[in-house]
Amino acid sequence: MIIVMNHAAAQSSIDRVIAEIEKMGNKAHLSRGEFRTVIGAVGEEGSLDQNHLASLDGVEKVVPIMKPYKLASREFKSEDSIVEIGGGKTPVVKIGGEHAACIAGPCAVENEQMLKRIAKHVRDGGATILRGGVYKPRTSPYSFQGLGLQALKWMRETGDELGMPICVEVMDTRQVADMEPYVDCFQIGARNMQNFDLLREVGKTRKGVLLKRGLAATVKDWLLSAEYVLSQGNRSVILCERGIKTFEDSIRYTLDVTSIPVAKQWSHLPMIVDPSHAAGKRDYVPSLAHAGMAAGAHGVIVEVHYNPSEAQCDGPQALLPEVFKDLMVQLRKIAAIFGKEFAEVGEMASV
Amino acid sequence: MIIVMNHAAAQSSIDRVIAEIEKMGNKAHLSRGEFRTVIGAVGEEGSLDQNHLASLDGVEKVVPIMKPYKLASREFKSEDSIVEIGGGKTPVVKIGGEHAACIAGPCAVENEQMLKRIAKHVRDGGATILRGGVYKPRTSPYSFQGLGLQALKWMRETGDELGMPICVEVMDTRQVADMEPYVDCFQIGARNMQNFDLLREVGKTRKGVLLKRGLAATVKDWLLSAEYVLSQGNRSVILCERGIKTFEDSIRYTLDVTSIPVAKQWSHLPMIVDPSHAAGKRDYVPSLAHAGMAAGAHGVIVEVHYNPSEAQCDGPQALLPEVFKDLMVQLRKIAAIFGKEFAEVGEMASV
Amino acid sequence: MIIVMNHAAAQSSIDRVIAEIEKMGNKAHLSRGEFRTVIGAVGEEGSLDQNHLASLDGVEKVVPIMKPYKLASREFKSEDSIVEIGGGKTPVVKIGGEHAACIAGPCAVENEQMLKRIAKHVRDGGATILRGGVYKPRTSPYSFQGLGLQALKWMRETGDELGMPICVEVMDTRQVADMEPYVDCFQIGARNMQNFDLLREVGKTRKGVLLKRGLAATVKDWLLSAEYVLSQGNRSVILCERGIKTFEDSIRYTLDVTSIPVAKQWSHLPMIVDPSHAAGKRDYVPSLAHAGMAAGAHGVIVEVHYNPSEAQCDGPQALLPEVFKDLMVQLRKIAAIFGKEFAEVGEMASV
Amino acid sequence: MIIVMNHAAAQSSIDRVIAEIEKMGNKAHLSRGEFRTVIGAVGEEGSLDQNHLASLDGVEKVVPIMKPYKLASREFKSEDSIVEIGGGKTPVVKIGGEHAACIAGPCAVENEQMLKRIAKHVRDGGATILRGGVYKPRTSPYSFQGLGLQALKWMRETGDELGMPICVEVMDTRQVADMEPYVDCFQIGARNMQNFDLLREVGKTRKGVLLKRGLAATVKDWLLSAEYVLSQGNRSVILCERGIKTFEDSIRYTLDVTSIPVAKQWSHLPMIVDPSHAAGKRDYVPSLAHAGMAAGAHGVIVEVHYNPSEAQCDGPQALLPEVFKDLMVQLRKIAAIFGKEFAEVGEMASV
Repeated sequence: MIIVMNHAAAQSSIDRVIAEIEKMGNKAHLSRGEFRTVIGAVGEEGSLDQNHLASLDGVEKVVPIMKPYKLASREFKSEDSIVEIGGGKTPVVKIGGEHAACIAGPCAVENEQMLKRIAKHVRDGGATILRGGVYKPRTSPYSFQGLGLQALKWMRETGDELGMPICVEVMDTRQVADMEPYVDCFQIGARNMQNFDLLREVGKTRKGVLLKRGLAATVKDWLLSAEYVLSQGNRSVILCERGIKTFEDSIRYTLDVTSIPVAKQWSHLPMIVDPSHAAGKRDYVPSLAHAGMAAGAHGVIVEVHYNPSEAQCDGPQALLPEVFKDLMVQLRKIAAIFGKEFAEVGEMASV
Repeated sequence: MIIVMNHAAAQSSIDRVIAEIEKMGNKAHLSRGEFRTVIGAVGEEGSLDQNHLASLDGVEKVVPIMKPYKLASREFKSEDSIVEIGGGKTPVVKIGGEHAACIAGPCAVENEQMLKRIAKHVRDGGATILRGGVYKPRTSPYSFQGLGLQALKWMRETGDELGMPICVEVMDTRQVADMEPYVDCFQIGARNMQNFDLLREVGKTRKGVLLKRGLAATVKDWLLSAEYVLSQGNRSVILCERGIKTFEDSIRYTLDVTSIPVAKQWSHLPMIVDPSHAAGKRDYVPSLAHAGMAAGAHGVIVEVHYNPSEAQCDGPQALLPEVFKDLMVQLRKIAAIFGKEFAEVGEMASV
Repeated sequence: MIIVMNHAAAQSSIDRVIAEIEKMGNKAHLSRGEFRTVIGAVGEEGSLDQNHLASLDGVEKVVPIMKPYKLASREFKSEDSIVEIGGGKTPVVKIGGEHAACIAGPCAVENEQMLKRIAKHVRDGGATILRGGVYKPRTSPYSFQGLGLQALKWMRETGDELGMPICVEVMDTRQVADMEPYVDCFQIGARNMQNFDLLREVGKTRKGVLLKRGLAATVKDWLLSAEYVLSQGNRSVILCERGIKTFEDSIRYTLDVTSIPVAKQWSHLPMIVDPSHAAGKRDYVPSLAHAGMAAGAHGVIVEVHYNPSEAQCDGPQALLPEVFKDLMVQLRKIAAIFGKEFAEVGEMASV
Repeated sequence: MIIVMNHAAAQSSIDRVIAEIEKMGNKAHLSRGEFRTVIGAVGEEGSLDQNHLASLDGVEKVVPIMKPYKLASREFKSEDSIVEIGGGKTPVVKIGGEHAACIAGPCAVENEQMLKRIAKHVRDGGATILRGGVYKPRTSPYSFQGLGLQALKWMRETGDELGMPICVEVMDTRQVADMEPYVDCFQIGARNMQNFDLLREVGKTRKGVLLKRGLAATVKDWLLSAEYVLSQGNRSVILCERGIKTFEDSIRYTLDVTSIPVAKQWSHLPMIVDPSHAAGKRDYVPSLAHAGMAAGAHGVIVEVHYNPSEAQCDGPQALLPEVFKDLMVQLRKIAAIFGKEFAEVGEMASV
C-alpha cells in the first residue's frame, strides 16, 4: 500500500503514519520528493487498514497495490477453473477452460406444460443446462412475481427427464434452504450482486452459483462478490456478464464484452454472457451472443419461448426455438476458432 | 399507454394490437400518420401489460403515460406527507412539509462507550434522531461486519436515555423480526434498494423506513421501491438521496441534488440527503449538506466521530463534533430561507 | 409527435396546443383518457418544433415518433451503403455490406522512417488503409501535439508507395482545406463528434469521413452527427465505435459492441470498431477486435508499433507487428462466418 | 510518480524502468515487497512521461502523485482568483472570492427588440452580465443555428446601453478574431470543452473565458482544459458547472454540485453554475440555483424570456422575468450566509 501525504503535511503527521503502518506489522518505506512525501507500506497488505490510514491527518490518498480479493484471483490459482454443474440424475456439465456451455429456457416458469415444451426445444437446439425463474425480481410490486416452490419442482422433474441440470434464481436468504434440494445451480441476479447475506448463504451450499454482474458494478466489485461465495468454501462460481447501465437508451443494457478479457486476466473463474437481458429485444440477442463468445466467454445463457407474445415476463427478448437453434450453430463455429467446444447433448446424456 | 407501430407494420399486426388492448379492458384509439400508425390505449393504464404489448409483431415501442407507482405519487396524495418517527420513551420526530430533521451518529456502533459519547455530541449539536450501524454491508468479506443484536440493544438504551428515536440499517429479511422491537426507523441501504423481499418485509412493520436511493437508480426506480413498502400498508417512508455513481473519481459518489425537486414534484414523501456517504471525505460534507437543504430537502443524515482515525468504518467521512455543531447552525439558516424548521432538542424532550 | 398533457391541464391549454400543431401544418388528433389527455400530431414530423410544443402551458412531455435524422436512416436508404476510400495512386478500398477492411498504423507519425517501417508491417499483416496522426488531441497542453503538415506529406507519400489510401485525424475547421489535397479519409475524433462546424466543413469535401462516436454519446446523437456531414452532400461516412465511458476503471473505455446491431438496424452506413483506444492496453485489443467483428462490424482500426515503449503517444495500446498479423488471421475467420470478407492486399494493389 | 511492477516482473524489467526514470532526470527509489516491487520516481514529475513508463515490460500500473495541471492549481496560487469582466463602456464585474455575479439573458438572440426587452428585465432583476447566443450548437443540422455577427453587434450595443458586459458563446476557431472586438467574455460550451484548438485560440485573447464542464468530464479533465487557456497567458477563466449526464432520464442533466467543493479545493479559479441547461425545465431551475450557491458557487448563469413558448431555442427552461427577480432575492440571502455578495446594479453603473 502506498500513502501519499499532502504537500503541506507536518513531520508529526508523517511520523504518525509510519507508526501506524508498523503497528499493523508492515515496514514503512519513506520517499521524500520535492513536492510530496510518499510512504510505502511493505509486508502483508491484507493486514493494513486502508480506511484507517486514509483518515489520518495529512494523508492525501492511499493507493492499494494488491487486489482486494484472493480466492477469486489468478494469483491464488493460475489455471482456469472448470466448474461442474449437475450430477445425480442428470449428466455433469462442465464450464470453464475449453468447455463452453449454453444455459437456456423460459424467463419465468408459467406452468408445467410450457416449461416442458420449451425445455425440449432448448435441448434440441443444443442447450445442456435448463434455466427458468420461479421467484421473479420485479421493479414494480404490481408485476407477476413467480410461482415459487411448485414451479421449482416442475423444473427439477423436467431437468431429470431431459438429462439437464437446472439453474434457478434465488432472491432471499430464506429461500436458500428450501431450494437447495432441488437446484443444481443458484442464480444470483444483478440487483442482488451486493446482497452480501445472500452471497454468504449460497456460499454455504455446494451447488453451483451463477453470479450476475451488477448494473453499475466494476469487475473488481464483481470479483469481491464472488469472493463472498468462495470464502464460505463453495468454489463453483460462474461469472455472468448481463449488461451494464450506460447512456444508450435504445437498448435495455449494454453488454460489456470488455469485461471478459479483464475478468479472465484477473480471475480463474469461468465466465458466460447473458445477451437476452442486455438486449431486452430479440433482434439484438444473436449479435450480442456472438460478440460475447468472440471476446472469450465460456458460454451463454439465453431465454427462449415458442410464443413470446404470451410470455408473462420479458417476452420481447425471448428467442423463437428455430432462431435459438441457428444461434447455437454460429456459436459453435466461433467457439471453435478460439479452441473451445460446446458439449454435444447426446454425448452428455450418456454420462 | 401509446403503442407506436413500426413503419412497415401490417394491418393484421395493427388489428392484433387493438384486440389485445380491448381484451385488457381499454379502448384503442387509432391514429394513422403518413409514416407511422400510433395506437392510444385509453382507460386504466394499470390493467395494461406493457411487456406483452411490446412483444407483439410490428410494435416499435410502447410509451406509458402514467407513472408506474400509485401510493407514492402526488396524484394519490397531493399534500406533503409528514412522517413521524419514535414515540414510546422518546419524543416523536416529524419529517416532511415544514419539518426538517437531522439524523446523526457513528457509522458503526463499535462499543457502548463510544456510542454514548457520540450520541451526546450529536444531540448537543442539534440532531434529534440517532443513527448507528449494527450490521454493516461491506464490499469485502474480510472487512468488519458489525456487532449485531448486542449493538442494537445499546442503540435502544442510548436513544431512550437521550430522548432520541433510533434509525438502524437492516440488510436481511431474517433480521426484520429481530430488530423490530428495538428500532424506530429501519434504514434500507443503497445496495438493497431493489432487494424486493426486504422491502416487503419492512413494509409489513409499522416502523419508519429510511429508503436510500440506489447508486445507479433513477427517481422512478426509487419511487417504485418506495411503492413496495407502501403497498404493504406502511406509509412511513422517508426517501434519502446518498449519492450516485458518476465518472467523477475524485469523490466517492455524486450527491444528486437534482433529484430533490424532481422527487418532490412527483411524490409527497419526505426526502433527506446523506452528504457523508456521498462525499466519503469530511472536507466536502458541509458543502453537500448545504446544497441538499437549499435544493429543498427535509433534513440530513450525517456521520460524526470524536476520533475519526480510530473509527472501524468510514472514518475519513466522519465529522468532528464541533464541525457538526457549526454545520447545524448553517443548516438552520438555510432552512429558514425556505420556510422549514429543525425542531429544537429541548422542546422535543418535553413532549 | 405525441404531446402528453399533465393531469390538471386546462381546456384552454389543450386548445392552444392543437392550434399550434395546426399552425405548423399537422393535424391534431385528440385522445382524452380518464387521467390524461394525449394529443397526436399527424403529418410531417420534421415541420413540428418539439421544443416549442414542450414549452407550452400544461404540456407534460413530448414524444417524437420519427427518428430525427433522415439521410443516415434505413428509411431513407434500406440497403447497406458501401463507402469507397482512395483512388488516384492507390486502389479503392470498399467498406460496407460484405466488404470488411482493416485500417492500421501508428498512433502518431513521429518521423518518416518509423512511419514507413510500420506501414510496411501493417500492409504485410493485411491492412488496406494506413492511419497515422499528425495533429493530436491531448488532454494536457503539455503533451506532444503532433508534427502537422510535414507528417501529412509523409503519410501521403507512404500511402502512394504502398498502395494504401490514408486516414488522418482533423481537429480544427482551419485544417480542412490544408489537409484535403492529401488525405483519402478524414478522421473525426470522439471529442469532436459534436464539433458541428467541423462536421459541416468535412461534409463539404468529397473525401471519406471516419466519424468516431463520442465518449458519452448515444447512437442517436452519433447518427445526428453523421447527418451533419451527409446534409452537406458528402455520403462517404463510416461510423467508428471506439469505446464509451462507463464505471469500469480497469480499462480506458468500454467498447460498446451493443451499438453495432443497433446502429446497423437504424442506419445503412458502414461501421467499424477501434479496439485500441477502447482498451488502452495491448493485452485486451485482440479480444475486443474479435467481439466487434462478431457483433457485425465492417472492420477495425488498430494501432501498431514495432517498439511501443518508444512511441510518443499511446504506446501501451500499440500491437506488435506479429500480434497484428495473428489478429488479422482470426478476424478473417470470424468475418467468414458472417459472410464478410477482408480484401486481399495483393488483389487490391493490382486495381 | 509511482511505478508498480507486476508480480512476475523480471529483474531486467525493473532495471530498465530505473534506467528510464534516471534518463528523465528523476531519482528512482526501489521498494521490494513480498508480492510486488514498487518504484518511486523522485524529482520533477512534469519531466516524466507516464505513457512511456506504462508501456515498458513488467509494469502493472503507473500512479501520478502530482496534479497534471499547474496554473489552474491551488499549489500555484493559493488564494481565490478574482476575474474581472467588462470595462470600457460598461462597469467591470468581479467574480471570485467574495464577489458573486449573475449572468442572464435569452438563450439565443432572435432579434434586436426581444434582446433589449429581456436585457432590461434581467438587469432590473439583478443580473450584471448579459448573455445571449449568436452561434448555437445544435445536435440536429436542421435546427435554428443562430444569427451570427449581426446578433453579436446587437448584444454589444445593448450591453453598452445598459452598462452590462456581455458573454457570448464561440464555437469555431475561425470565429474568435471576428468576435474579439465585441465580447467581454467568450463562452466555451460543454461539447467544446475538449476542442483544444479553440481553447488555445481564446487563450491568446485577453477577454474572459467562461469554460463549461463537459457532459462526461471529470473535474481533472475540466481543469486540464482550463490549463489550455491559462497556458496561453489568459488568466481570466471562470469555470461553469452545467450538469453532467447520468442515468436519470427525468431531467436533462444532473447539476453536479459535488464538483463545486472539489474544484474549489483544487483550483483558485472562480466557479459558477448553469441551472437552466441542467434542468431543461423551468420548474427545477430555482432549486438547482439555490443548491449551487449553497454548495459554494460564485454565481449563476440563467436563461430568461418574457414569452418562453415563442423562444426559438430552449424555451422550456427559460424563467419568466418575475420568477427570475424572486430567484435573485433568494440567492442573495444564501450568498450572505456564506459571506459572498452579488454586486448591486446601481452601484456598478457608477463605476
